[in-house]
Amino acid sequence: MTRRTGRRPGNPGTREAILDAARTAFAERGYDVASIRGIAATAQVDPALVHHYFGSKDQLFLAAMNFPVDPGQLVPKVLAGDRDGVGERMVRIFLGVWDSPTGSAAQALLRSAVSNEWTARLLREFVTTQLLRRVLENLDVDPVELPLRGSLVATQMIGLAMMRHVVRLEPVASADPETLVAAIGPTIQRYLTGPLPT
Amino acid sequence: MTRRTGRRPGNPGTREAILDAARTAFAERGYDVASIRGIAATAQVDPALVHHYFGSKDQLFLAAMNFPVDPGQLVPKVLAGDRDGVGERMVRIFLGVWDSPTGSAAQALLRSAVSNEWTARLLREFVTTQLLRRVLENLDVDPVELPLRGSLVATQMIGLAMMRHVVRLEPVASADPETLVAAIGPTIQRYLTGPLPT
Repeated sequence: MTRRTGRRPGNPGTREAILDAARTAFAERGYDVASIRGIAATAQVDPALVHHYFGSKDQLFLAAMNFPVDPGQLVPKVLAGDRDGVGERMVRIFLGVWDSPTGSAAQALLRSAVSNEWTARLLREFVTTQLLRRVLENLDVDPVELPLRGSLVATQMIGLAMMRHVVRLEPVASADPETLVAAIGPTIQRYLTGPLPT
Repeated sequence: MTRRTGRRPGNPGTREAILDAARTAFAERGYDVASIRGIAATAQVDPALVHHYFGSKDQLFLAAMNFPVDPGQLVPKVLAGDRDGVGERMVRIFLGVWDSPTGSAAQALLRSAVSNEWTARLLREFVTTQLLRRVLENLDVDPVELPLRGSLVATQMIGLAMMRHVVRLEPVASADPETLVAAIGPTIQRYLTGPLPT
């Protein structure tokens, strides 16, 4: 993480103190319950300063995760197009991020989540609140089914990332992205919009 | 890796020395190329002693991985039944192992593979040669397609293990096994026997 100096109000440690407080709050209380007000109190700063540095709670979460891409910009791309193509688009956009230079930050996050319960909690909150919920809420499926659909999608997507980038199992590790889109897209489509076991 | 000195056939360090040599050979050369003869040479013992302690190359690999279950006993269960049910049976048997007390060894292996390139290679060899190849060879699919089918299965299965046991994303983390069999079985079935992208 980069450190800035010369900023006012606040000494150079203020930004880091806010991020530390945010990581603790998001991991311990979850994204929905954690509040900017509470995070500011832990960091002993005014809530207005948190907004000044980081903007919204979403943006603070991204900064706390050190996440290289704003899901707020990805989700509309997943949703742009017909409903039957959402599975393939999700795989294509996911691979676009993971295969890019910025994907190494996502890989580091995944590795860390495996060995660190605290990072695992942050990753869990991130995947559900920043990615899956936003997509699923726009797909007109039964709200009761959202958690199961979302976590099924996560099993396939995280497994894809693990095998392609961490364990590096061939031929998935070096397959053309469109081969994986064609093979795995229908799985994601079924988890998102297909029939679920009752 | 531990190093032993003053070894003779039958002293307490011999068994560990063989396992060390086996791990190195399987990780560096791969399961197919590694040989009992070469492993015995590295461990400075007679090949007959390796057979005496561990039996076959398969069994030596399992011992080297410290793997709690013999896939040789699981694969026939996956294959026992009609071809259209192989996906569901694979998920059911996989969950049976991971959810059991012995599953903690598998979880430890997965965690280690994420942080350790050497364990990742062993896991890769294990998954492909001990599990997927054995199942796929009995399903009458085009041999050219075996590697892609096998690694697609691995993405979904390892992702399921990650989300259920490591990241613990709900509701997958505590779902009834049969719910997951019904939801994920068709994915595995398609990867094993369905049409693949060309």
